[in-house]
Parts: sequence; structure tokens; C-alpha cells
Amino acid sequence: KTGSPKFSSRDGDFTFQPLGRLQYDYSTTDGSRYADREIDGSEFRRLRIGFQGQLMEPILYKVEFDFAEENVGVRDAYIATKKDFALGQGVVYVGNKFADRSLDGATSSKYIWFLERNPVANAIIPESGYYNLGVTSAFYGKDNWHVSAGVSKGDLGNSNTESDNTTLISRAHFNPFVTDNAMMHVGAWGFYEDFARGNQDDLTDSERFASHFNDNVRVYSDTIDEPETSTGYGVELAGLAGPVAAGAEYGRRTIDTRAGDDTDYDAYSAQIGYSLTGEQFGYSTKNGAWSAPTIDNPVTDGGWGAWQVMARYDALDYENNGQFAGGTGHGTTLGVSWYLNNYTRFMLNWINWNTNNRVPIAGDPTDRDFTGSDDGNTISARAQVIF
Amino acid sequence: KTGSPKFSSRDGDFTFQPLGRLQYDYSTTDGSRYADREIDGSEFRRLRIGFQGQLMEPILYKVEFDFAEENVGVRDAYIATKKDFALGQGVVYVGNKFADRSLDGATSSKYIWFLERNPVANAIIPESGYYNLGVTSAFYGKDNWHVSAGVSKGDLGNSNTESDNTTLISRAHFNPFVTDNAMMHVGAWGFYEDFARGNQDDLTDSERFASHFNDNVRVYSDTIDEPETSTGYGVELAGLAGPVAAGAEYGRRTIDTRAGDDTDYDAYSAQIGYSLTGEQFGYSTKNGAWSAPTIDNPVTDGGWGAWQVMARYDALDYENNGQFAGGTGHGTTLGVSWYLNNYTRFMLNWINWNTNNRVPIAGDPTDRDFTGSDDGNTISARAQVIF
Amino acid sequence: KTGSPKFSSRDGDFTFQPLGRLQYDYSTTDGSRYADREIDGSEFRRLRIGFQGQLMEPILYKVEFDFAEENVGVRDAYIATKKDFALGQGVVYVGNKFADRSLDGATSSKYIWFLERNPVANAIIPESGYYNLGVTSAFYGKDNWHVSAGVSKGDLGNSNTESDNTTLISRAHFNPFVTDNAMMHVGAWGFYEDFARGNQDDLTDSERFASHFNDNVRVYSDTIDEPETSTGYGVELAGLAGPVAAGAEYGRRTIDTRAGDDTDYDAYSAQIGYSLTGEQFGYSTKNGAWSAPTIDNPVTDGGWGAWQVMARYDALDYENNGQFAGGTGHGTTLGVSWYLNNYTRFMLNWINWNTNNRVPIAGDPTDRDFTGSDDGNTISARAQVIF
Repeated sequence: KTGSPKFSSRDGDFTFQPLGRLQYDYSTTDGSRYADREIDGSEFRRLRIGFQGQLMEPILYKVEFDFAEENVGVRDAYIATKKDFALGQGVVYVGNKFADRSLDGATSSKYIWFLERNPVANAIIPESGYYNLGVTSAFYGKDNWHVSAGVSKGDLGNSNTESDNTTLISRAHFNPFVTDNAMMHVGAWGFYEDFARGNQDDLTDSERFASHFNDNVRVYSDTIDEPETSTGYGVELAGLAGPVAAGAEYGRRTIDTRAGDDTDYDAYSAQIGYSLTGEQFGYSTKNGAWSAPTIDNPVTDGGWGAWQVMARYDALDYENNGQFAGGTGHGTTLGVSWYLNNYTRFMLNWINWNTNNRVPIAGDPTDRDFTGSDDGNTISARAQVIF
Repeated sequence: KTGSPKFSSRDGDFTFQPLGRLQYDYSTTDGSRYADREIDGSEFRRLRIGFQGQLMEPILYKVEFDFAEENVGVRDAYIATKKDFALGQGVVYVGNKFADRSLDGATSSKYIWFLERNPVANAIIPESGYYNLGVTSAFYGKDNWHVSAGVSKGDLGNSNTESDNTTLISRAHFNPFVTDNAMMHVGAWGFYEDFARGNQDDLTDSERFASHFNDNVRVYSDTIDEPETSTGYGVELAGLAGPVAAGAEYGRRTIDTRAGDDTDYDAYSAQIGYSLTGEQFGYSTKNGAWSAPTIDNPVTDGGWGAWQVMARYDALDYENNGQFAGGTGHGTTLGVSWYLNNYTRFMLNWINWNTNNRVPIAGDPTDRDFTGSDDGNTISARAQVIF
Repeated sequence: KTGSPKFSSRDGDFTFQPLGRLQYDYSTTDGSRYADREIDGSEFRRLRIGFQGQLMEPILYKVEFDFAEENVGVRDAYIATKKDFALGQGVVYVGNKFADRSLDGATSSKYIWFLERNPVANAIIPESGYYNLGVTSAFYGKDNWHVSAGVSKGDLGNSNTESDNTTLISRAHFNPFVTDNAMMHVGAWGFYEDFARGNQDDLTDSERFASHFNDNVRVYSDTIDEPETSTGYGVELAGLAGPVAAGAEYGRRTIDTRAGDDTDYDAYSAQIGYSLTGEQFGYSTKNGAWSAPTIDNPVTDGGWGAWQVMARYDALDYENNGQFAGGTGHGTTLGVSWYLNNYTRFMLNWINWNTNNRVPIAGDPTDRDFTGSDDGNTISARAQVIF
């Protein structure tokens, strides 16, 4: 849809399409009772280059790298094969594949409504993270449903001196109705992790609440020693009606330790959006996730582009258990998106956040523990180009 | 001009052009009174891959990465838009953009006369370095002048736990006359930096005098504690007359500390070149910088290619203030460039350098302090391919 | 042969061909007397992207990067020029070039028979490793022979505060007979290293015996202090007869220290393969190395693809000298390769390995020294796509 050109061998068997994603962010924070949280600056949030195409019918490939951090990160890097059936299309992916989990989590960062995903997507997550290194299969039904399942062994950058963790992950969605200008979405997902002995002596989680730039405004879990297994699940509900769109989801993760102690995280989020210029919010009935909106009057054709306004409330609780001193946080975000055309988008977010940490962040050598109740306001902006 | 092919979508809106730059250097040093400075070896000086093109009229993009060091470095990575006016063309860049500062500093490393830029370019520089991460605007006048201005917030690889520095930078040039075989260039530039409290506890600068390979032959500044702001400026003069070219520039940087102490760096450089095969040295009247020469008789067409001989004198002074014990250095470089064709160039430099450091380099754990007056000779060679 | 499309400028002078290599491995080990060696997991063994082509007749270029490890690695990165003579073709490469050394070592990782190369290739190797950073020249004779010679100064990632090592390396092969369905190969190679004083205070070598994933199953040399020079050589013998292929090689490396002590490593390997589907094993008479097999009936055309079964025995001895306490190891590998088509291959290896280390690995901070005799079984699998 974004229209990067696809190069082809003469017989059409081999295709090669360049992919790019540039997100440049500015962020400033005020109102915290800690001066160290009131910082401003800019960064590349994502800077990705990749390629995708077909090697030969029916073998597909994709590789994508992110250069925004000091070390280059591998994102999608897989080969895949697909087959059509009466009910729909089956695909099997081998390699590193963006995992299917949560409505916001399954939405590409190209199309998320706000600068950052909600805490259901970011915090109710297996240790292997946003990508599944192993085998993923998906079936995309003809009648607006899909189901996927993946199994992974480890993740990129793991040491080669310990066994890798094993993770199972699955998600399904269904659209009870889809019309030209309305849609309803229900979805559910879950994961199970088996931590390899010796590989995962402890784990600590944290979630940024004032956009990615500000590492100091985070909610953090307690350190969980000797985790043995973990399970997570979530439910999703969303809908479109003309220029209005809304979504809500809930997720919960339980971690069992070898000592027999358990802890639970949970998070929820609800968001609503309105398109000032009338275009529907983008949504894909194929994989049940937000997608690119249609831009009726691109700026590059002399129009106004597409303008959207959005609001979100989200909350995260890392502490549901007396033995573990995890933190809590919640936030309200107001956002504006201006799509100049299919390639270009400017975003502005205002976030009112509240964090309540109970322990200093694990391993922080400074005295900046940011514990206790605190709140503040963050304004973040993004310039985005994708192809 | 180097002719890498430009790929286009069918409607011509999207274009995609690969960019490459390979510089492989050998260097050997002799004559120092420190044995540790008499080292030889080879390295990739630059190894760049990138892409540029148009996303859609009038939106341009460019990304370029350097793989020569252990961590991949992001170079140009921006989106831009341009508009034509009666007086010339205006361009606005958002992202990471090669900064416009100093005649040698504004010249692409593809086209610099010697293996390394002069110390005006390398040492009279803001902490953000050779690139401006933020917004840059430029106006290219129709009558051989241009002016640019940029504002940046931080640079790549910055921590996300402190505010970023703010930097303003500007440059202008004018060509009082331009004929078919002669040209005169005058230019000026300046920058202003505001160091974020906590982000920049101190700063130390250094400049290599025996080409990039040899890290031991450097002049270094004293450590400057708690810098608050810094300003820099420079002036440029250059000209072409047939096969002769010459350039000179001067630059000065002042650093103010929070304690009220100030220090100044200054540097100057003058260079002259002669083209044995008669082609003019390359120069761009658009952005006021050295550029690719025309190669009348490429080796690949059976000719001699283009041969240039050059000489440069440059000097740097890090110590203009009694409270700070910065070093001084100066050097004379003789160089030969052989352009086989538009893509390929071999270079040979002989450098007679002199350094006088007053303090050991900040943070060096060894006893190799290289203080006191020292001089020596370095021979460096480069094989370069660009496309 | 793998058929990635080659893009061309209109006049055909500039060409640009994308290159990709994805190898995703799973590995599990059992039967060791150390629990820490019985680990399983998955990883990208190689994840490469690159470009090659012609800049302008007769200048060629190639760059290739590997993203499988945390830091991006530069692989081939050179410019080259070639010229035809009566006896064959001469090529000179400047930059970083895959070194010509050992039959298995000179074979591309795309075409090696097993998941890992044999210990002649991996352990009888100069400190500069698999690539030669400098100048390499090769002559490819018309009558099934070639000879190459390279000189290098340092390798990528070297520090710029010491001189680089100097390495000379050479290899030649000859095919006494070549028919449509049979071939005989003889080859020999050698290298010489001069270690720069101060650059190489000591060296330690090690070799994995249970595939790349498992870092704990390794044989390691003693630490060799103050090496001065090193020499290595090897001999190769191989042949093809219809669906049968076989190869054997031996290599030896001597390291001389400044104190006058010497130590020797040696390794040998023999392997035999049979093609169940009848296609010949791939072999290149140009550069004397294993290459891509022809796939008569690709799966993508409804066929079975090509199926090969292979066996290998190999052994390594790091200890040939009473003063040095190096380890020994040997292994037997059985393998199956299934080529679906020219782009895609699945591999399964079963390895019975035996290690006998005499000292803990240098610098290992844990108590996992894995000394004494140990053996076990490893099963490894690979999914590979190349273009």
C-alpha cells in the first residue's frame, strides 16, 4: 500500500522490494517531583532498512534491520511458504518473526495510533519480547478471522553457553461484522514460557510511561528470582463506525518461581479516535490489527492530508502479590496524527502520567530510584516516513 | 555525477539509488621520539552503504550507514522537502544531516584533497560533531551563493536519562566571480551550543595529526569541567584558476564553564593544488565546497586519468588560556591524487607533523602520555571507490 | 547460479546485484559428563546482506555484512580488477577478501556439506582469520587449476594504537582429470604470520566440536605468550565419481615465541557423500572448492529436490609439545542435506564428539573448565536460504 517499488527478475519468480522506516522523535517532560525526570531531547525511535520478496514460487523472504540504537537490531528475518485452501490461506514462517500478541502489540509501529504502544502490548509480554525466533504458523480465513501459533527457542543475542528458553504463543481474532463503513473486532491471545535452568537466574520488567525518550519515567517490577515458567493471556475488543474508531484490551501474566512463589502482572488500555477529515481509521480484517488509513486528499496532491485526534487511558500493575514489591502506573494520552500522504506522518502526543514505584530499579547504580507516587506531563512529537 | 543508477517506480514518483563509499588506508609513521607512535597498519577508513531518492514529489529521503568501525554508525538519515523560489531553491531537512561548517568540513569525504580534513574542520567543532540531528534549512541562491541554518537537540547514541544539548549552526558562502576556468570563494560560519546540565560534566577534545590510523599521534585539549555554553566561528577564502586551486580558512571556538572560566581553541589551514593533467579541481558553486573533478581521460577509456599534486600547512592551538593546559600541533602535508575515473581514486600523503602536548590524554590508563614536543613523518595511502 | 537478479545501468557499465544468506540453526547436546554441555537452543548462524557488481569495466566491487551476532560484521568488502590472458584470468582484489586456505575453508558456507567446517579449516588458521585485509591476487587457469596469493596488514576491528600483524597466504589447486561425471582434485596451501611487537601479547585458540551453538563443547589450546611468527600449511585430496564424492585434508600450524619455545597444532579430516537423487555434488574447477549442486527436480517444480547423505571424521591436536598443555578432540558426523531448489536447503547433522582438554579455557571466569576426557552426541539442524 505504501508503494515502494518491487523489482522482479525477468520470469517474475524472484522479487525484491526495499523497505524503510524512519521515526524521529522529540520529547520534553515537566511537572515531576524529581528534576532528573524533567528532561528533553530527540532521538531516532526507529531507523529501519530491509528487503522482502519472493525467492521462487512459493517461497517468500523478509529481512529488516534497525539502526536506531548503538547496536544494529535484527527485526523480521525469515523465510516463509504459503498455500491456499478452501477456507483461506496458510503460511509457515521459519526464523525471526514479529510475534502475534495483543491488538496494539500486533499492530505495526508504522500504524500505531500513539507514539508508543499501550502497556498490555509492552508489559504483558514473554521474555523473548516482540519477536518469535523459531517457527510461526498462521491461517488467514476468508471470512474475516485468523489464528496463529508460534514456538520459539531463545531470542537473538542469547549466549551460547546456556540452553534457550522455550516459548509458545498464539492469537486469534474474528470480525462478527464488517461493512463498508463499520466493523467489530474480538480477539484473544496467550503465551507460555518455560525458562531453561541456568539461563534465567532472575527477571525484572519495566515499562516507560513518558514515551521512549525518557528512560527515567518508568514503572518497574520487583526482581523475580529463579523463575520457572510464565503464562500470559489477553482479550481484545475494537470497532469502527465511520470516522470513529475505538479499541480496548486487557492482559495478565503470571510468573511461577522454582521456590513456589508466584506473581502476577496485569494491564489494560482503552482508546478512542476520530478522523477530522472523514477517512476511516486503518484496520486489517486479515490479521486483526490496526493498519494504514486511506488518505483521500494527500498534501502532495494539494489536499489537507488526513487528520486524526485520539485519546487513550492505560494502566499497569506489577505488584499483585505481597511478596513482590512491583510498581504501578497509569496514564492519559491525547494525540494528533497528520498523514500528509501514504508515506509521511507527523504526530503530537500529550501524556499525563502517574507512577508509583516501590523499589529502586534493579541494577541502577545511581541514587535515582524514583520511588513513591509521582506524576507529570510529557509532550512528544514524531516525524515519520515509511516505504 | 558518479553515476550509480537510479531505480524508479513506473510513474516516476518513487526513486531509489544505492550509494557506496569504500576507503581502505595504509599508514606508517617514523621519526617520533616515542616508539609507540612509530606504528603501521591498515584499516577501512570508511565503508558506507546507503540509499537516497524521492518518496513522492516533493519529499526526498536519504539514509547512509558506516560499517568501518565495530558499531555501525548512522550518517545522513533524513527526509527533506524542497521548493523553488525566484531567487533560488529552499530545502528543509528533518533528521540527521551532515552539518554545514568550514570549507573543508562541508566538503564530502569523497572529495577532500588529502586523506584527512584540516584541523579547522576537525577541531573547531561543536560536541554534536559532523552531523546535525534535528532540523536543517538551506537556501541555494541562483547567483552562486547559499546560506544554511540548523538546530539540533542531542546526537545519535546519546543516553536517554539526561536532557540533550542544544546546538545552532549556520554557514554562508558567495562566489564574487565565476568564469569557465576561474572562481573565487568567500565563506563564513558559526555555531552556538548550550550544554544541558548533567549531560556534559566535562569535555575533552583531541585531533589526530598523522592520519586516522595512528591514534597515538594526537594533540589533546585539557579536560574542561562543567562547560555551560560554547561558540565557534570561521572564515574561508578559496579560488580556482585553470589547473591551480587554493584554499585557506581560520576557525575559533570559545568554551564558557559554569565556574566562569573560559578557554579558546583556534586553528588555521592553507592548501594549494595543481592538476598535472590539466582538469580543474572540483568545486560546487551551489553549496560552496570542493567537489568531484571532471576526469577528461579515464583509465577505463585508455587514458591517464586525472593527476593532482597538493600541499597543505595547518596548525591547531588548544591552549590559549593560562588555566587550561591544552596542546598545540602543526603539520605540513604533501599529497598526490590519481583519479582513474569518476569512481576510483588512489591517494598518497606524506605528513611532517609536530605535536606539543602539555597533559596526558584524559582517561588514558597507560603511561603513554606523549607529552612535550615531538615530531615525525607519516606516509599514508588510500584506495577509494565511490558510487 | 542462485539467480538473484542483476540490475544494470542503461549502458550496462554499472551493475548491482543484491546478495542474501540466512542460516537458522537448532542444536541439542546429550551424553556429556558435564551437565553444562547438555544444552539446546537456536540461533541465526549467518544472516548476511550484501551487494556486488561492476562499477565500470573492468572494476568490480563486493560488500557483504553479517547481522547474526550482536555487532555487525564486515565480510567481503573489496574492489577488484581482472584481465584475461592466454593461460587464464588474473584478478587483483583490494580490501577485505575471503581468504583462500584449505578445501573446506575455501568453500563458501553456502555450500559446505555439514553445518560446520572441519578443524583443518577452523583451527589451522592465521590470527587474521577467514578474511584477508589487504591485497589478494589470483590466477584462474583455463585448464582446471588456480593459484592465489595474499598479503594482509591487520584485520577489521584492530586497535589503532599498535602496529598490525603482517600475514602472507597462498593456495593452489589442480584437477588431474575432469570428465562429465568424474573429477580428481589435489591442492596445497600455506601461510606465514609476523606478529607485531606489542600487538599480540599472547594467543589462545579454540574449536567448537558440537556445532556453533554450543560454546561449551570446545577444544582449546594453551595460552601462548609472546608469539613472534607462525607458519601453517595443508594438503588436500578430493574426487567425484557420479553420485559419490569424497575429500580429505591435513593441516599443520607452528607458532614460534619470542622466548624461543615452539608449539604445533595439527588437524585432519576425511568425508564421503552420496547423492540419493543422483545429482553430482557441486564442485568448482575454477577455484578448487565445493560449490552448488545442480538440482534436477526442484520441489518448486513438483519434484523431490536433491537429497545427499554424508559422513565425516575429523581430529584436532593442540598439544604437540610438552611445554604447552593444549587439548585434543575428534568427532564423527553423519549428515543429510535436502536441497528443495537452488535457493533453499534443509540440513540435519548428528555428531558424536570427544574432547580432552588439559587446561581450563583462557579467561573463563567460571569454574566450567571442561577438562579431561568427555564425549557426547549433538543433533543440529539448519534451514538455509541464499540468493
